[in-house]
Amino acid sequence: MNSPTRHLRCVRNVFTLPAITEDLSMFKSVELGLKVSKEEYDQRLPQLRAELLVAQQALKNSPVPVIVVVSGVEGAGKAGVVNALTEWLDPRGVETNVFWAPSDEEQARPEYWRFWRTLPARGKIGIFFGSWYTDPIVQRVTGKLKSAAYDRALQRIANFERMLAEDGALIVKLWYHLSKKDQRKRLKKLEKDPATRWRVTPQDWKFHELYDDFARASEQAIRMTDTASAPWHLIDSADARHQLLETGRLLLEALRQKLEALRQAPPRPKGPPPIPKKLETPTVLDQVDLSKKISDREYKVRLKEYQSRLNLLTWKAHRKKVSTVAVFEGWDAAGKGGAIRRVTSAADAKLTRVISIAAPTDEERAHHYLWRFWRHIPPAGRVTIFDRSWYGRVLVERVEGFATPDEWSRAYLEINDFEAQLVERGIVLLKFWIHISPDEQLRRFKERQQIEYKRHKITDEDWRNREKWNAYLLAVHDMLTRTSTDVAPWTIIPGNDKHYARVQVLKTFCKALEKAL
Amino acid sequence: MNSPTRHLRCVRNVFTLPAITEDLSMFKSVELGLKVSKEEYDQRLPQLRAELLVAQQALKNSPVPVIVVVSGVEGAGKAGVVNALTEWLDPRGVETNVFWAPSDEEQARPEYWRFWRTLPARGKIGIFFGSWYTDPIVQRVTGKLKSAAYDRALQRIANFERMLAEDGALIVKLWYHLSKKDQRKRLKKLEKDPATRWRVTPQDWKFHELYDDFARASEQAIRMTDTASAPWHLIDSADARHQLLETGRLLLEALRQKLEALRQAPPRPKGPPPIPKKLETPTVLDQVDLSKKISDREYKVRLKEYQSRLNLLTWKAHRKKVSTVAVFEGWDAAGKGGAIRRVTSAADAKLTRVISIAAPTDEERAHHYLWRFWRHIPPAGRVTIFDRSWYGRVLVERVEGFATPDEWSRAYLEINDFEAQLVERGIVLLKFWIHISPDEQLRRFKERQQIEYKRHKITDEDWRNREKWNAYLLAVHDMLTRTSTDVAPWTIIPGNDKHYARVQVLKTFCKALEKAL
Repeated sequence: MNSPTRHLRCVRNVFTLPAITEDLSMFKSVELGLKVSKEEYDQRLPQLRAELLVAQQALKNSPVPVIVVVSGVEGAGKAGVVNALTEWLDPRGVETNVFWAPSDEEQARPEYWRFWRTLPARGKIGIFFGSWYTDPIVQRVTGKLKSAAYDRALQRIANFERMLAEDGALIVKLWYHLSKKDQRKRLKKLEKDPATRWRVTPQDWKFHELYDDFARASEQAIRMTDTASAPWHLIDSADARHQLLETGRLLLEALRQKLEALRQAPPRPKGPPPIPKKLETPTVLDQVDLSKKISDREYKVRLKEYQSRLNLLTWKAHRKKVSTVAVFEGWDAAGKGGAIRRVTSAADAKLTRVISIAAPTDEERAHHYLWRFWRHIPPAGRVTIFDRSWYGRVLVERVEGFATPDEWSRAYLEINDFEAQLVERGIVLLKFWIHISPDEQLRRFKERQQIEYKRHKITDEDWRNREKWNAYLLAVHDMLTRTSTDVAPWTIIPGNDKHYARVQVLKTFCKALEKAL
Repeated sequence: MNSPTRHLRCVRNVFTLPAITEDLSMFKSVELGLKVSKEEYDQRLPQLRAELLVAQQALKNSPVPVIVVVSGVEGAGKAGVVNALTEWLDPRGVETNVFWAPSDEEQARPEYWRFWRTLPARGKIGIFFGSWYTDPIVQRVTGKLKSAAYDRALQRIANFERMLAEDGALIVKLWYHLSKKDQRKRLKKLEKDPATRWRVTPQDWKFHELYDDFARASEQAIRMTDTASAPWHLIDSADARHQLLETGRLLLEALRQKLEALRQAPPRPKGPPPIPKKLETPTVLDQVDLSKKISDREYKVRLKEYQSRLNLLTWKAHRKKVSTVAVFEGWDAAGKGGAIRRVTSAADAKLTRVISIAAPTDEERAHHYLWRFWRHIPPAGRVTIFDRSWYGRVLVERVEGFATPDEWSRAYLEINDFEAQLVERGIVLLKFWIHISPDEQLRRFKERQQIEYKRHKITDEDWRNREKWNAYLLAVHDMLTRTSTDVAPWTIIPGNDKHYARVQVLKTFCKALEKAL
């Protein structure tokens, strides 16, 4: 049997495609009416299962998370596909995720939070029954998404999948197709049997009438998201045995290709990049006026003023269900902790959560690096402060060589997209870089060694990092210029005078909240 | 300065206490009016902070999770305490948890799910601002909990804390006390300042009027939950500096004692216990009639009958928001997987999730062994199937010596309590032990080696486990007899005939759902 599955391959530049064809030829071309007899099915299945298990076993020890998207026409037997996959595979490595109407915890966060929550770890297979495709397609058909908004939604999907694929994920997207006639037959059949009649809802018939609209919206979705790293596979679902064997075959082929590609991949570059002795060009940090300071008297007055304003504002934000995410980055000993405490002692501890980023746990390591931050996105009306953040990817991971140049250079876009999603959901996003001079850092390191309860803050690593100042300087410059977007600008705080820095942080905080409320 | 804190110590048998005293002498005895001057505070604080950091550093590499419960009278300055603790401690090892009205995801699950979600990992400190005490006390005062129900709620707290403490947790419970007069003063002061006026709600005044009722309910809560492993510390909060220093001192003392106790603890017994050659007494499994079987014809009829019934029932349960948790345990090759698949192919894949229990992740290992199961408690209206479960604690962990005799023998009660909480929330709980004879197991092992896609299922470990049959037999007997409770009985399925077993599982499933709906 030749494969009747139509593979859409490598449409890399997805947004220059011609207009959607009116005759829906993409789907029509799949309707080949191929059938598999029971004998052939019974004969082919055992080997397919054995080979799938071998591939899954190899996957288990690889750094690859597998995302299987099960989509397609209503009534095409997707539940049967999911059941078959969970039967064939070793269940200890498989999770099935189903998406219903979002819960209130999900609604209170960006749309993709619920998908991030369920992404499989490396070595595991996540089956997505319903996915990031469902809502945009339904909303397009029901008119809730206009054409431009639909394009944006599909672009977001393409970005999301590309990001996961670049991180090593294998994405297998399966579209189960059924002609309008066959869909009608299936619904009729369900209605005929008293045991299944109630399963056919008026909405099913309504959607059946909208079949052509669904097909058009789906075809557009498939075309715009059919990328080299996450291609679509269209499967004719008129015959259930054919459908199941094709599913297994495609998954097996994808697993094998991925594992083979992994074997042939060049080794990761090792070790940190060299530290520049001297920078050729000025950085944005050169323009920071580090002489700024305030008097003790003014500090007291301003601190009190902004702290009480901030207290009122965070409670007001709570009532209006506006969340805040604040990122604190800066040189070692720049005063991040002190600034954060001036914020947390103003905002009520009930509303605030500080996430200090240290080494990831192994569950975190088994996911995309942004996963551990998505975990901490606050519910409505709260303040989450990140003491160091996702910017570690383009700072310490770059300088220490933990991330390859490929990895950290694509992180700028990934981060911009992540932050755009926060802001879109109405989250107030603040990003502080607290800047100090190398001399001031040295003074503070020495001072810390004198004070007993501060001594733990200064480690050998801090001294080593000082030697990499120029490498960090370049990384910070790139970060500030590439991720200071309209919706998520950086605030650079001159930090040589701690009091000045704290007041500036509080002031920026208040202004951002006032603007948002 | 002597400690003015009243320690309630070692009231082990908490339910034989005399009736609540009418003069609230417990709290009165704390009102000593002690004050700390600013000089004394500034002088003592640096050393306290340094010592706390040293203790926290030692904690970091220990297997101890620390739970700090911050409770007490409204207006006693608890937020200030939380802010101070997060300032003093290394924030990378501290999480603050605040509890508001439960979200819908929380409401759809047993009451303690939200607390389990936030328990700190070993080596970390979790500060609980609001806790499992809040709701019962408020509900008692507002009359929503009658006396007997309140006692039960407090008993549940005592059990919960004892379980965590026995697992190695350090539980530090702090009660911040303020006299009625001082509470009134605080509220008045807040109202006077325009910046804080809005913070005082009508409810605060209502609660102030109920001060004595709160004190009575709180005193009862404190007495009934003041155990050796989780004692209460009452702190006079009239003076903020005294309050803060006392908090730090108590936490430091508790950390030191715990770390010292750990150093002096006898080493864990190592290696598995001996395997009995022969059992002295019969086990409950001896009574299982393994000759039960059904014909192929009857299997087909019954399978179809029960599967379609189950399909309807799971959808009905979904509509009525009734969740199901089903546990499958049994000998290797007993047919758990096959039985589970007959359930999942009947229930819709959209409603069902199978959790296969393999080795825990390191995040799971860093928590109480039940934590990883609480993670998977389904939201309303879904079916979660555990392929192996929390019973691993009293089966494989006992037989292999991974759990000490102390650990597995107290697990029966812990499990019974856990399951009671599921059932109380309306979850339908099913527990299957699928039983086969050693001969039948041998036959299946050999058969599995013949079929390519089943070969992965049979490992050296399976053969080793066979040699421990008698040890497992004893463990299964104990498990079945000790955890077959009224609310969560075991169903023992004769499994030598796979078809018979599958039909019995489906039938039991249907009957349980029919009874619940």
